[in-house]
Amino acid sequence: MDALRPGATIGILGGGQLGRMLAMAAARFSYRTIIFDPDAAAPAAQLASAHICAGYDDQSALDRLAEACDVVTYEFENVPVETVRHLAGKVPVRPGARALETAQHRILEKEMARRLGAETAAFAPVQNRADLDAAIASLGLPAILKTTRFGYDGKGQARLTSREDAAAALEAMAGGPAILESFVPFDREVSLIAARGIDGTVTAFDLVENEHRNHILHRSTVPASIDAAARQEATRIAAAILADLDYVGVLAVEFFAVPAETGHRLLVNEIAPRVHNSGHWTEAACVVSQFEQHIRAIAGLPLQPALRHSDCVMQNLIGEEVDRLPELADDPAIFLHLYGKKDARPGRKMGHFTRLVGKS
Amino acid sequence: MDALRPGATIGILGGGQLGRMLAMAAARFSYRTIIFDPDAAAPAAQLASAHICAGYDDQSALDRLAEACDVVTYEFENVPVETVRHLAGKVPVRPGARALETAQHRILEKEMARRLGAETAAFAPVQNRADLDAAIASLGLPAILKTTRFGYDGKGQARLTSREDAAAALEAMAGGPAILESFVPFDREVSLIAARGIDGTVTAFDLVENEHRNHILHRSTVPASIDAAARQEATRIAAAILADLDYVGVLAVEFFAVPAETGHRLLVNEIAPRVHNSGHWTEAACVVSQFEQHIRAIAGLPLQPALRHSDCVMQNLIGEEVDRLPELADDPAIFLHLYGKKDARPGRKMGHFTRLVGKS
Repeated sequence: MDALRPGATIGILGGGQLGRMLAMAAARFSYRTIIFDPDAAAPAAQLASAHICAGYDDQSALDRLAEACDVVTYEFENVPVETVRHLAGKVPVRPGARALETAQHRILEKEMARRLGAETAAFAPVQNRADLDAAIASLGLPAILKTTRFGYDGKGQARLTSREDAAAALEAMAGGPAILESFVPFDREVSLIAARGIDGTVTAFDLVENEHRNHILHRSTVPASIDAAARQEATRIAAAILADLDYVGVLAVEFFAVPAETGHRLLVNEIAPRVHNSGHWTEAACVVSQFEQHIRAIAGLPLQPALRHSDCVMQNLIGEEVDRLPELADDPAIFLHLYGKKDARPGRKMGHFTRLVGKS
Repeated sequence: MDALRPGATIGILGGGQLGRMLAMAAARFSYRTIIFDPDAAAPAAQLASAHICAGYDDQSALDRLAEACDVVTYEFENVPVETVRHLAGKVPVRPGARALETAQHRILEKEMARRLGAETAAFAPVQNRADLDAAIASLGLPAILKTTRFGYDGKGQARLTSREDAAAALEAMAGGPAILESFVPFDREVSLIAARGIDGTVTAFDLVENEHRNHILHRSTVPASIDAAARQEATRIAAAILADLDYVGVLAVEFFAVPAETGHRLLVNEIAPRVHNSGHWTEAACVVSQFEQHIRAIAGLPLQPALRHSDCVMQNLIGEEVDRLPELADDPAIFLHLYGKKDARPGRKMGHFTRLVGKS
């Protein structure tokens, strides 16, 4: 396939900060972007060439998007699979519907990881109280009950430490299908941001070490303090997933790292079929960022090895933490990035910053 | 003064690639941008929150801009001074009218430089043939005749090597006021990108070595191969100019470097009261780019020392050179930036790239 020419148009399903940063990366290749998002105040729309403000089930609006674009991508994994299927009949959608479907379904996701030789937490599907009791008996406690679909940032999760928690946990699933996952005794969470090109080339950024607060990513540190064998295993797993899904674009794989006899064992926690919060540091510390890498992949341009010029720490600004702007702007080693969101609601990702901490 | 809060609006007079890159830098602080440019296809408009498409003499459109903005800046120095004066009565304009007026007038510019203790080429104002003959007699040949105002990228210039060139050179000035500049035996052209904050703080990026082709910047190399004393002199001159103009924002000073007994002497060639092509490398090699530094300055945020993580070479893509995209995209050390312009006309700046060449 020939690469998209400058002036070509990329459609982006979803208009949050990830779409916003993708739009900026696309602009540097003279690609136009159209944001498709039902929110009139979508942060990405300000940086895009156009905004189709419509619901993901609005077929005539989707048809307008397909008509106007050379390729379509998505920036969050809760886009309805039907939306992508509809578009894919009219315009290339990268990554495709299968990646989306897998990432939206915790059981499919774990089954894929295991099929490809990766470890995951032990798990069991849960539809009702009988399933849950059986799952607890089989997996033991503590364990975590999660909705099978549409969870993010800790939403749709309930922790069970004793059998007495079962009723409330099940209620939190609101009657939807769920999955009980056994507790994993990890001491680190790490993630890998990898990409696959149309020609099957795979490239990965350095492994990232992540800290969460209130189930939301708080801080990412690069490089992760983890052994070389575990790093290699992360890359092997990501490459296998990318190939298995015939994936085009950037994919994030989140792992639990469990202390082992030597170094760490990695268990796949979940995948995100998109650019990822734990890859934001790449815009400050690499020649080619995750956003540019994704645009390159879906546009048919060559991927680049992830040349990193500095070690760094990325930290999110959640809610009113964005008020730290004056202090953060005063630090010469900080690359700051706010998302253009008006209301600093609690738990809302308002921006992030990356502090370069030296040279690798 | 308090810094602009996220959500504030910055007006930018001019919608070329410089405005486009300023808009992207502003977005990272959650500032909105309004581009004011008579060209409906202004490259900056695609990345801005809004575009007022009107002439620089359209007072009601300017009033709408002033009404909508917290601060206004400009991205090219041929904005009419009257436009800035009109706006400045209603909204802060940074840098102000005096910087613009000085930069637009080669004689005022050189007189300022000399008053501040900097060297310049010898020069004489030329209104007519008698002036030109007297100037040639006084300065000698070769020399360069330039329109006093509104020249850029070599436009409005004529080189005189013998008295026979006088008539044609004068004709090229189209009857406007001109200046004859004596030939400077430079072996390098260098530039300094400096900035001054509202509080008077001055900061400068590393000195840049520039090569031109057909009077258009071709390549910038950082660091410049020039002695430390000359570097210090460049910073001293830039700081003096910034203070003299009570300047707020980024300013570029272009110098001729003339071989001296030890090292080089610097002569001020011209100033540009804006972000500058020879500072584009800063977005690839520094934590804070010239674009962000300018936004910081006009927004009242603290300036940052120009932390540079890599040595680099920036090269412009002029006209059909933009067709090198596939080859350039294949180099892992290149940070690419195209401007979203449709027609690759000869001499038109279509983009640039910065190659990181190692670590300082």
